[in-house]
Amino acid sequence: MAARHIVVIGGSDAGISAALRARELDPATEVTVIVADAYPNFSICGIPYYVAGEVGHWSQLAHRSAADLAATGMRVRTDTTATRINADEHTVEVLHRDGSPAQLGYDAVIVGTGAVSARPPISGLTGAGALGPADGVHLLHSMGDTFAVMDSLRQRNPKTAAIIGAGYLGVEMAEALTRRGITVTHIEALPEVLPTVDPELGALVRAELQRHGVEVLTSTTVSRITRTDTAALSVTASRDGQTLSRTVDVVLVVVGVRPDTGLAAEAGAELGVKGAIVVDDMMRTSVPDMFAAGDCVHTHHRLLGVTWLPLGTTAHKQGRVAGENAVGGDAHFAGSLGTQVVKVFDLVAARTGLREQEARAAGRGWIPVTSQSSPDDHKAYYPGATRIHIRITGDRRGGQLLGAQLVGHRSAEIAKRVDTFAAALYHGMTVDGLNELDLSYCPPLGSPWDAVQVAAQTWVRAHRPAPSGQSLID
Amino acid sequence: MAARHIVVIGGSDAGISAALRARELDPATEVTVIVADAYPNFSICGIPYYVAGEVGHWSQLAHRSAADLAATGMRVRTDTTATRINADEHTVEVLHRDGSPAQLGYDAVIVGTGAVSARPPISGLTGAGALGPADGVHLLHSMGDTFAVMDSLRQRNPKTAAIIGAGYLGVEMAEALTRRGITVTHIEALPEVLPTVDPELGALVRAELQRHGVEVLTSTTVSRITRTDTAALSVTASRDGQTLSRTVDVVLVVVGVRPDTGLAAEAGAELGVKGAIVVDDMMRTSVPDMFAAGDCVHTHHRLLGVTWLPLGTTAHKQGRVAGENAVGGDAHFAGSLGTQVVKVFDLVAARTGLREQEARAAGRGWIPVTSQSSPDDHKAYYPGATRIHIRITGDRRGGQLLGAQLVGHRSAEIAKRVDTFAAALYHGMTVDGLNELDLSYCPPLGSPWDAVQVAAQTWVRAHRPAPSGQSLID
Repeated sequence: MAARHIVVIGGSDAGISAALRARELDPATEVTVIVADAYPNFSICGIPYYVAGEVGHWSQLAHRSAADLAATGMRVRTDTTATRINADEHTVEVLHRDGSPAQLGYDAVIVGTGAVSARPPISGLTGAGALGPADGVHLLHSMGDTFAVMDSLRQRNPKTAAIIGAGYLGVEMAEALTRRGITVTHIEALPEVLPTVDPELGALVRAELQRHGVEVLTSTTVSRITRTDTAALSVTASRDGQTLSRTVDVVLVVVGVRPDTGLAAEAGAELGVKGAIVVDDMMRTSVPDMFAAGDCVHTHHRLLGVTWLPLGTTAHKQGRVAGENAVGGDAHFAGSLGTQVVKVFDLVAARTGLREQEARAAGRGWIPVTSQSSPDDHKAYYPGATRIHIRITGDRRGGQLLGAQLVGHRSAEIAKRVDTFAAALYHGMTVDGLNELDLSYCPPLGSPWDAVQVAAQTWVRAHRPAPSGQSLID
Repeated sequence: MAARHIVVIGGSDAGISAALRARELDPATEVTVIVADAYPNFSICGIPYYVAGEVGHWSQLAHRSAADLAATGMRVRTDTTATRINADEHTVEVLHRDGSPAQLGYDAVIVGTGAVSARPPISGLTGAGALGPADGVHLLHSMGDTFAVMDSLRQRNPKTAAIIGAGYLGVEMAEALTRRGITVTHIEALPEVLPTVDPELGALVRAELQRHGVEVLTSTTVSRITRTDTAALSVTASRDGQTLSRTVDVVLVVVGVRPDTGLAAEAGAELGVKGAIVVDDMMRTSVPDMFAAGDCVHTHHRLLGVTWLPLGTTAHKQGRVAGENAVGGDAHFAGSLGTQVVKVFDLVAARTGLREQEARAAGRGWIPVTSQSSPDDHKAYYPGATRIHIRITGDRRGGQLLGAQLVGHRSAEIAKRVDTFAAALYHGMTVDGLNELDLSYCPPLGSPWDAVQVAAQTWVRAHRPAPSGQSLID
C-alpha cells in the first residue's frame, strides 16, 4: 500500500502548522506544501518591525528556515501556484513559476490560502491606470508587498506618508514609518483609531500616536489618490462634509483583508460568513477529504458561534487540528475568543471576548454592561508603576464575563493579563469568579488583588452589587 | 435593636480585608479593628524595597492611610493588644499601650493574628543573652522589625551582612542589601536557593545572586552566631562536615514563619496542620461566631486539600470571605494554588500548583512527571527576546496539569504567564488543554503559540505522545 499523501495549499501559518502536525503524528505520511511565493512559514505579523528597521534582515521573519522545514520531512514547493483542486479525482493542479504545469494526487488536501488585502473603492486605487507600488502606493499583506514598500522607501526616500486605515496593521505601520523619520498622516474612516477596542481606549492609542508626531484624522473618508506633477501623491478626503487633502511621498492602504477562497470554492467547497470557507470544528470543508484552516475559513467563536475573525493564533490552532485530522486523528478546534494585542510605541492595547455592542448584537439574551477602571500594574510604592485602563463587559443578569479590553504601558504586562481574561472566558467564568483565581503577587509585579481582579470588583460593584444574589443581612 | 458589632483582631492583610468587606456589604455593622502596633494595613511584602532604598518613606508601604480606613467607617484601634477572647461571653479583652485594659463585645470576631518569625535553633539566637537588634542581629517580619533593621544600617553602617535563609524574603533582602552597597553572604541549609522551586530553576536564581556579588552558601547549616571583640558578628556554619565561618557587620535571619494562634487556641479554637487554626471554607473556626483568616489559619489548597501556606494573596481572599460571612453572607474560599512570584535583581521566578515530589507526596494517585523547556518570551526577531525556563508537572495517566514553575528575565512577563497556568489549574485543565486557550500574540510580546503553550507541547510530547489516547493511523 502506498504511503498516504497530503497536499497542503499555502505556506503561511495554517498550512505549515497543518504540515508540521501531520508529519509529527505520522512520519509515514508524505506531505507536500504548495507555496505561491518564495517565503514559506514567514511571520507576516513581523512585517512592521522589518519596515521599521528593528528586524535586521527580512529572512529573520521566517518562523522556520527552509532547512528546518525540510528536516521535518515535508516537501515544500515554493514559487508554485495551485490552480485547481479536482475533488473527485483527488488531484491538485499546480503551475510552476516557469509556466510548467504539474498534477499532484492526494489522500487529503488542506487549503490554507489565507486572505488578501481589501482594496477600498478609492479613486486612483481601482480600475485601469490604478496607482501601485511604482507610484509609491502600497497595499501590505505579503512578503512581496513588503519588498515593494522597502523599494519605495529606498528609491523615493519619503519624508511624508499617508496611512489609510488605523486597525492593527495601520497603527503598527504608523509607528514603523515614524521610526524611520517619516512624518505620517493617519486616516481612519471610523470615529476613533483602533476601532476594535472601545473609543475610550482607542483615544489613548490616538494620543500615543500624536505624542510621537503622527497626524491622526478620524471620521475621515479618503475619496481619491492622485499623482502630482512632482511625483508626489495627493490624498483627498472628506470629514464632516469638509474636503481636506494632504500631499505625501508614499501612501499605504491597510483597511483589512478578505478570505482567499477561489480555489476551494471552484472545487465545490461551501462558503459562508463573509465569503469564508465553511468548516466544521474538525476543519473539514463540505468537500470530502478537503480540510481548510486559517484566514480563508469562517471562525468558530466560543461566544458568537460562527463568524469570520482572521488571526495568526487561530490559524496555528486550526492548522494543527486540520493536520491531525488529515492523518486520521480526532482533533477539534475549541474556538476563538478573538484575543488580540498590539504594541503602539510605548503603549499596548489588548482585547478578548466581546465588547458591549458586540455582545448585544449576538442575540444570546445577555444584558451586556461595561465598567472601566484604571488599577496600577503593580504596587504604587515600587518605582515604575503605571495605570492599566481596563474595560470589562459582563452579563448583568447572570454575571458571566463576556469580554475585556486593556490599554497601558508596555511595561505593564498587558499581553499576559488579557490572557487571564481569555482563560476565564474559555471556562465561562463569571466576572466575580475572577476573584477566586490564585494569581501571583509581589510588589514590583502586581498587587494582592491583581489589576485583573480590581477591574472585576469594579464591575461587580457597579452592576452586581449583591454577591451571589442573596440578601446579606439576616 | 443594637447594630451588629464585629471585632477584627489584626490589622494586616486578612484583618483589614475582612473589615473592608463587612463595611462594604453592610454599612450598618460596626467594625472595630484591633492592631497591636501603629501600622495597620501595611504591605509587609514591600519591606525589602524600603530597606533597599527604592521606597522613599516607610509610610508609602501602607496599602491605605489611616484616613482611608476611617473613611470606610471602620474603627481602627492601634497600639492595642488583644489579650483574650471570651467566646462564651462574646467579648474581647484588650490592653492599650499605656497599660489600660478594655473589653469589647462582639457579635462576630475575626481572628487575623498572622504569623511570627521562626527563630531557628542557632546558638546565640535563643535562650538567655540571645543576640538581637542591638547587636545587629535581626529577624524580619513586622514594621517594628524593619525599623530596627534600618536603625542598624544607619548606626552600624555595615559593609558586610549574612542572610540566613534563601526563601522569598531572603533573596529579596539579598538584593536589597546589595543595592545598599553591602556585601552579602547568603546561607541556606537546603541544597539550592529558593527551595520552593526545583533546583534546576533555583540554580538560575543563585547565578543571578552571584552575578551581583552575593556569596551563596547552600547545604550550609548555621550553628552559632557570636559577637566578636570589635562588635562585629561571627557566623559559624557547617557544610559537608566542614566548619566554615564568616565575620560580618549584621545578620538577618529569615528562615520562615509560624502561625500566631495563641489567642484563638486559648479561646477554644481547634488547631490543625502546622498548628494553624482550623477553619472551614467559610473561614469559620470551631468556636461559634469566631472566624479566622490569613497566615494564622490552615489553607484549603485546591490540589492538596488542607495544608498551611501563608501568602498575602490568600490572606486577602480569606479575609474578604470572613468579612462577608461575618455579616451573614454565604461566601466560600475557593482554595489556594500556592501561586507565588519573586523578583531577584533582573530575574523573576514564579510557581503555581505542585512540583513533582509534592504531587507524588499528595497521595492522590497521580503519576506526576515533569518536563522543562525554554521558549522565547516573544519572537526572537524582535529586539529583546529572552528565554523563559518553564517546568511543567502533570499527571502522566490522565494528563492533568498539576503545576508550573517559570524563571526568566523581568521583562518576560513571567508573573502574568504563571497566572495563565493558575487559571488553568483552577479549572482542572489538562496540560494539552492549554493549547486550546486563545492567548494573545504580537511579535514584541509573544508568539503564535505562547511560551506557556510551547511548554505544554513539550510536556505532551515527552509524556503523552498520543493525543487523546487514540491511534491516529487508520
